[in-house]
Amino acid sequence: MSSTRKFVNTMRHQDQVNEVYLASDKQLRPNRNGNLYLQLELSDRSGSIAARLWNASEKDYESFENGDYVRIEGATQLFQGNMQMIASSICKVPASRVEDADFLLLAGQEIDQLATRLSEILREVKSPHLRTLAECYLMDEPFMAKFTRAPAGIKNHHAYHGGLVEHVTNLMELILRIADRYPDLDADLMLLGALLHDAGKVDELSYERELAYTDQGQLLGHIVLGVAMLDKKVAEAQQLSGEPMPEELVLQLKHIIVSHHGEREFGSPTVPMTLEAVALHHLDNLDAKLHQFGQLIRDDANSESHWTQYHPNLGRKLYKAPQSPNS
Amino acid sequence: MSSTRKFVNTMRHQDQVNEVYLASDKQLRPNRNGNLYLQLELSDRSGSIAARLWNASEKDYESFENGDYVRIEGATQLFQGNMQMIASSICKVPASRVEDADFLLLAGQEIDQLATRLSEILREVKSPHLRTLAECYLMDEPFMAKFTRAPAGIKNHHAYHGGLVEHVTNLMELILRIADRYPDLDADLMLLGALLHDAGKVDELSYERELAYTDQGQLLGHIVLGVAMLDKKVAEAQQLSGEPMPEELVLQLKHIIVSHHGEREFGSPTVPMTLEAVALHHLDNLDAKLHQFGQLIRDDANSESHWTQYHPNLGRKLYKAPQSPNS
Amino acid sequence: MSSTRKFVNTMRHQDQVNEVYLASDKQLRPNRNGNLYLQLELSDRSGSIAARLWNASEKDYESFENGDYVRIEGATQLFQGNMQMIASSICKVPASRVEDADFLLLAGQEIDQLATRLSEILREVKSPHLRTLAECYLMDEPFMAKFTRAPAGIKNHHAYHGGLVEHVTNLMELILRIADRYPDLDADLMLLGALLHDAGKVDELSYERELAYTDQGQLLGHIVLGVAMLDKKVAEAQQLSGEPMPEELVLQLKHIIVSHHGEREFGSPTVPMTLEAVALHHLDNLDAKLHQFGQLIRDDANSESHWTQYHPNLGRKLYKAPQSPNS
Amino acid sequence: MSSTRKFVNTMRHQDQVNEVYLASDKQLRPNRNGNLYLQLELSDRSGSIAARLWNASEKDYESFENGDYVRIEGATQLFQGNMQMIASSICKVPASRVEDADFLLLAGQEIDQLATRLSEILREVKSPHLRTLAECYLMDEPFMAKFTRAPAGIKNHHAYHGGLVEHVTNLMELILRIADRYPDLDADLMLLGALLHDAGKVDELSYERELAYTDQGQLLGHIVLGVAMLDKKVAEAQQLSGEPMPEELVLQLKHIIVSHHGEREFGSPTVPMTLEAVALHHLDNLDAKLHQFGQLIRDDANSESHWTQYHPNLGRKLYKAPQSPNS
Amino acid sequence: MSSTRKFVNTMRHQDQVNEVYLASDKQLRPNRNGNLYLQLELSDRSGSIAARLWNASEKDYESFENGDYVRIEGATQLFQGNMQMIASSICKVPASRVEDADFLLLAGQEIDQLATRLSEILREVKSPHLRTLAECYLMDEPFMAKFTRAPAGIKNHHAYHGGLVEHVTNLMELILRIADRYPDLDADLMLLGALLHDAGKVDELSYERELAYTDQGQLLGHIVLGVAMLDKKVAEAQQLSGEPMPEELVLQLKHIIVSHHGEREFGSPTVPMTLEAVALHHLDNLDAKLHQFGQLIRDDANSESHWTQYHPNLGRKLYKAPQSPNS
Amino acid sequence: MSSTRKFVNTMRHQDQVNEVYLASDKQLRPNRNGNLYLQLELSDRSGSIAARLWNASEKDYESFENGDYVRIEGATQLFQGNMQMIASSICKVPASRVEDADFLLLAGQEIDQLATRLSEILREVKSPHLRTLAECYLMDEPFMAKFTRAPAGIKNHHAYHGGLVEHVTNLMELILRIADRYPDLDADLMLLGALLHDAGKVDELSYERELAYTDQGQLLGHIVLGVAMLDKKVAEAQQLSGEPMPEELVLQLKHIIVSHHGEREFGSPTVPMTLEAVALHHLDNLDAKLHQFGQLIRDDANSESHWTQYHPNLGRKLYKAPQSPNS
Repeated sequence: MSSTRKFVNTMRHQDQVNEVYLASDKQLRPNRNGNLYLQLELSDRSGSIAARLWNASEKDYESFENGDYVRIEGATQLFQGNMQMIASSICKVPASRVEDADFLLLAGQEIDQLATRLSEILREVKSPHLRTLAECYLMDEPFMAKFTRAPAGIKNHHAYHGGLVEHVTNLMELILRIADRYPDLDADLMLLGALLHDAGKVDELSYERELAYTDQGQLLGHIVLGVAMLDKKVAEAQQLSGEPMPEELVLQLKHIIVSHHGEREFGSPTVPMTLEAVALHHLDNLDAKLHQFGQLIRDDANSESHWTQYHPNLGRKLYKAPQSPNS
Repeated sequence: MSSTRKFVNTMRHQDQVNEVYLASDKQLRPNRNGNLYLQLELSDRSGSIAARLWNASEKDYESFENGDYVRIEGATQLFQGNMQMIASSICKVPASRVEDADFLLLAGQEIDQLATRLSEILREVKSPHLRTLAECYLMDEPFMAKFTRAPAGIKNHHAYHGGLVEHVTNLMELILRIADRYPDLDADLMLLGALLHDAGKVDELSYERELAYTDQGQLLGHIVLGVAMLDKKVAEAQQLSGEPMPEELVLQLKHIIVSHHGEREFGSPTVPMTLEAVALHHLDNLDAKLHQFGQLIRDDANSESHWTQYHPNLGRKLYKAPQSPNS
Repeated sequence: MSSTRKFVNTMRHQDQVNEVYLASDKQLRPNRNGNLYLQLELSDRSGSIAARLWNASEKDYESFENGDYVRIEGATQLFQGNMQMIASSICKVPASRVEDADFLLLAGQEIDQLATRLSEILREVKSPHLRTLAECYLMDEPFMAKFTRAPAGIKNHHAYHGGLVEHVTNLMELILRIADRYPDLDADLMLLGALLHDAGKVDELSYERELAYTDQGQLLGHIVLGVAMLDKKVAEAQQLSGEPMPEELVLQLKHIIVSHHGEREFGSPTVPMTLEAVALHHLDNLDAKLHQFGQLIRDDANSESHWTQYHPNLGRKLYKAPQSPNS
Repeated sequence: MSSTRKFVNTMRHQDQVNEVYLASDKQLRPNRNGNLYLQLELSDRSGSIAARLWNASEKDYESFENGDYVRIEGATQLFQGNMQMIASSICKVPASRVEDADFLLLAGQEIDQLATRLSEILREVKSPHLRTLAECYLMDEPFMAKFTRAPAGIKNHHAYHGGLVEHVTNLMELILRIADRYPDLDADLMLLGALLHDAGKVDELSYERELAYTDQGQLLGHIVLGVAMLDKKVAEAQQLSGEPMPEELVLQLKHIIVSHHGEREFGSPTVPMTLEAVALHHLDNLDAKLHQFGQLIRDDANSESHWTQYHPNLGRKLYKAPQSPNS
Repeated sequence: MSSTRKFVNTMRHQDQVNEVYLASDKQLRPNRNGNLYLQLELSDRSGSIAARLWNASEKDYESFENGDYVRIEGATQLFQGNMQMIASSICKVPASRVEDADFLLLAGQEIDQLATRLSEILREVKSPHLRTLAECYLMDEPFMAKFTRAPAGIKNHHAYHGGLVEHVTNLMELILRIADRYPDLDADLMLLGALLHDAGKVDELSYERELAYTDQGQLLGHIVLGVAMLDKKVAEAQQLSGEPMPEELVLQLKHIIVSHHGEREFGSPTVPMTLEAVALHHLDNLDAKLHQFGQLIRDDANSESHWTQYHPNLGRKLYKAPQSPNS
Repeated sequence: MSSTRKFVNTMRHQDQVNEVYLASDKQLRPNRNGNLYLQLELSDRSGSIAARLWNASEKDYESFENGDYVRIEGATQLFQGNMQMIASSICKVPASRVEDADFLLLAGQEIDQLATRLSEILREVKSPHLRTLAECYLMDEPFMAKFTRAPAGIKNHHAYHGGLVEHVTNLMELILRIADRYPDLDADLMLLGALLHDAGKVDELSYERELAYTDQGQLLGHIVLGVAMLDKKVAEAQQLSGEPMPEELVLQLKHIIVSHHGEREFGSPTVPMTLEAVALHHLDNLDAKLHQFGQLIRDDANSESHWTQYHPNLGRKLYKAPQSPNS
């Protein structure tokens, strides 16, 4: 990560800027006098900022695409309590000239470590059937490429490249830690459940550049996609091992996928009816909420208040304790 | 159907009975004096009635299974406004000695007619891709055997053998009739949607004798099962026709299956987002409700009232108009 | 409909326009420099577009009323992905100089055909009582004038002049088509129910120019208004025929009106408790939803996407299939 | 009220009883040995008790109707914590031989006083229009006969003869008392609103003997019935006074009726949108709930506990304070 | 209150203004040309208005704080149907130079009268225990200072200085008036309940200048704060009187506080289970809603319509009757 | 635990029994012939069973109390698929003659180990303030006596003596295990939150013999009781340490208590707004649900089915996998 770079979260009022950012949400709009201006969003790994180029033309608008990197010259300005960028020039920069680590919340190396840890955990699963099944996912390079690039969502928690593998690996760490407290729980089944529950997200979402839903993602959802994927992997596992995967085992894995949202109104066609399904649902929820709350508190722009902005999807503000209360 | 048979719905107070019925829900219970009696449910195609055999033994209890046919000697008695049977003897009868038509709401011949009509409609689908796909279902004999035997549910609407094919065929008839009023609707897609939306019920339910859920039915639901079945049929159709099924078409069919309950809280992971999906959802609902209301009104035991019993699942009584009000 | 007219849905970026439109939602607003501009909505039968007249005065604002026709000179401009009109002059035009067919989604002739078909259907009702009752509505010229002009709502489905008669007539067509599938349904009662269920809307809404609620519409709703109207028509029918209308019949008709929203939370004081009431509720819903979805898909401005905009009242986007998937 | 009478609420374990009660809910049922017994409910103004006549016959069952008075000989017995009556004989008694005051929660005299107070209040309404309208209800003898006999409901609050006039008169007393605290409220409109809001209950319920819903009550509800009744009374008032009733006034009265349940899910087609409508809704609720809670606490059978039984419709037990806590 | 003052609610289009107002919500914002302007809210007791100072500087922004009084020179302008102020100068004015009565919805004198009435009522409570307890609140000067300054909320009803004491005193007036209609109600307990139910609001809200939540208010809520306050006051009362407060009495008072929102989803950990708790809940609701509806109708800016604006928190518009309908 | 004892869960049809059990729910009831019988519930640590003594008298009924130990002679009988006991004699046994370990789900020794572990964990809290506060709870012997005897609820999860300390200690074990995965979480605050969140249950419930709610428990709930208890303990901690507890710290602890049910409709007056509050809510839920599901699966009586009984409070059956599916 470049040490001299001007990161978004270090900008102050009236900074002069000459730096490269990721562009998104570009719009060409007329102002009240009928003159056009270009509005866009600039981001790097530290956050994002709105930008405007006054007196812009159609040509400016078409000089780059959403998802491109652009070099911006301009100055920052406080606007409605938020910083914005007034650009004087915008110029596309090839991705090859950019240091990835400046733009990704998770650096490639961090993602590699997560993927390594994930494999390590899965290869220590005791059940031979489940270990073989896990292997079929791990050996599937296109799947793993997508699995390590995908976010866990397009808003809310882990909504950035690598977010999915980060969430899944952390879930596995939780399972390993608490397993001794619940001897009735089948930890192997839980670990596979962690891998599979959101695996359909690799096809539900598109994340080459901007995060969005694919058509099949929107129309079918990652639960239905994940079950179909499991059907294929079970066939592969049977070929690999030369013996049938117990139907009972596949049924329970599918049930974990199908029920992991916990309630019908959150999109699960059936509710959790096994110990492992109910455990995975609650652990998934715990990790998602803690990650989301933590990020909202850390990134909140309301720097003068003990409170974050109001978050309509959570129905609340969050409290940023003035400092550790017990020190 | 035997003309001389004593059907359940013709029983009056203190009728002497010597007749064969289908047994279910048998229980051996002690009365207040510690003597055992046998309680069971007797049914035929006209309805069902509770029966008791006083001073019964373990041996009586084990002389037949739920789902067996039994010859009953006894007399009827009015109990709490409902008829019940006081049996003096109960004796198992082989299924081969029974006339099916006395016990099935839909006779085999009626089911055959429904299946024939279903095939006829599907073979007139205009889209070659969809026609081939339909053919793969129709040619699959084990599937069709189950499809024509399955109920559409275990309570509420069409909860009897043949109920599924009856519901699906009627849905197709509705589609054919209203298609001209909505030119934007793709009628072929709708007809396949009608076939597929509940096809997973052949595996969700068990219906050899008593109606119940299978393990996978309870844990996964017919939506998830139906999508998996479609994946297999698409592969077969591609082999049959030698050309690929358009992905877009498969996606839209799957969306119809996935969304046909209309709302997440009713078990659909995604809500209808195409014209055909929303149309199928509403037609499915219309047929189910009209069938259920009609049956509740016809079968209601409250013969002296304009009102049926209160139905908790509907949250209401139904009004049985004293006679056609406009005659 | 004028063939040379510049319809709203044919406008492209930077078209020069000199054409007549229907004006609504006019507002005189200051821009950031304190100069006033006039903002308004322009529409014709093909759609609507926002317009602005820069450097406007109070006099411009008062030169026409909402609901007037105005001639616009100006040019179009793409703004936030939507087209807008920058007007250089706005000038009121008498309604007599305008061709109605350019502004109405349903031309007068189409509405006449719908009204004719509606009468035709009602006059073939078999029940003499119901036929007489229908006649009292059809003979009531002020009612029919309003009934054929009213929309079926002010937003959502059929929200344009003639929308009510279009919706009601289509509902009758559906009833005629599906009646043979449900022999227990009294089709005559259903047809009258279709006529009556929304008849109160002629007084609930105001639709001379802009669509809105009347005071009594807002305070009482069309269900209560429709029942009161039926009370009057029953009295007229009794006078016309010289014999009493069976009370049972009137009760069932009123129940259809009262319960047609299906659930209390949607404004029905009682839920459907007869076969005809539940059927009408579901058919009403089917026609409304199919009409609304169809219109949203056809009129969607997001021309480059497979998806319409997000519709908050539906809680979803709709999928515009790239093309007929099974061709 | 007879001082020597054996009232239901004075019965103790193993009392010998020879007294007259009101009979309801009679059923002829077989016991486990096949012998028939007669089960019925006995009540007087102090409460009700279940009774059984062992070894009963069809003839016993037919010797009286629900709603008749019967003389009972027998003895009381504690059964599952509740008292029950074991009868040795049951014999019908003519209503003329019974003292009404022993059976009515409200004696005829009390009801007369309520009706007198109601008239008195309405005749002091200041608005001539509203006073005339009220007069048309008061002069309508069949209406007043029903209005003073009807309950306010068939369960929950004021569910006994005279309950409606008691509830309405108390509501008027509340309005008179609090009017000075809310000068914007039109007290006359409120008083008429109190009279009208539940007036439809005279036709919604049947209460000659047992309390029940009429067919039209169940199918239409008292709100729709009350608006129709008001339409007739307005016509009468116009004839009586020789001048038109202001439409605005009628509209606001109707709105009070239509919206008095406060929310759509409680059966109001529109929600309160005027000051008087929202006030009446809340006062109606206050009086109903206080009456219901008070009665449940006074009548509770759980005499050894601080808590009443659990009431599923309220979702709670009520707390019966051991004694006035502040004495 | 100054008679010559230019009150906000008397402003018309293009009035020249030179007057003092309370400032809030100040923001320094760039316009589309990059020039800064200052936006703020101005208010007095008659209402509030948005204001803008074009070409403002950081220095203008820092020349006063939210909650300060400022002298404004400028002119009014109609903007989007609402009046706004275009200021030419803004200048801070010391609070000492301002007449309080011009800015407070309740003048100090009115608040004093309310507080006097409150004391008067509480000192006539008959129960010695409760009278002593009330005295402990009344004698607590810091509490009474806050209690008479606090609003009853920060939006919705009584959201202004003195609103809390106004609401509580009115509640007591209602209790005194209706007590004779409900002899089972313990009026003393009700009066104390009125005092205590919202007493926690003195710590839940901050209201020195702008109305807001305190940290503890947001994190704990006024119910939990009010119970803790009662614990302290009970200790004081025991010291004052030298005898223990009956536990039963304290329990019932706490229950009134805890349950006064009526339902769990409105923030009450338990629902009302005593007569007094259910009565207080309903009276609280009645007073809050009538106050809110009355104020929305009186203050509505939509002067040309019978209807107020749509209020999303109420889910409705309110009807402003054209004039008293029965005059 | 006695090895020769006849435990409830080992009973088979027609076992002769002569053993001591805990009695509850005793009722004296007449059978259909008017003879009295005694019905009661018998339990030991392995489960519970219904029992009947035919031809019982008032004297039998009064010979023991609910919560006493009784020696039963009799025989078991299968009744409606459940075992029941037909007793021939019932005789009270002094508690001193009974081995506690036969009746408690958690033996005294197990509870002691839990309490020891709890103290150990709390004494390793790093924050001196929080450690002192914890000490005040641990030193409070009456509190600890109740805390180690109380259940965590009267139904659902941990509903037995010692259940509260078991639940709380397990929650602490989870916190210790997962703390390293969430560095932003203040683990000390979490550990105190675990201790405090349900501490109010020691007063909300009564559990000397049968499990029930206390009056204050029902009227106020354990959240309000727990906050009041914390206020006292903070005062003690300040005295103990001689220095003030930081207000911020107390506020955050109270917020954890107040919000730990997660949503208002589950009885939390405010929702979690800090990281620790949201974490504790989810972990509490996880432990409660896993414990409840595990116990329902282990104790289910439906021994021939893969499915437990339907649990209305969970809205589902649970799946008892036939055996570990991956072995």
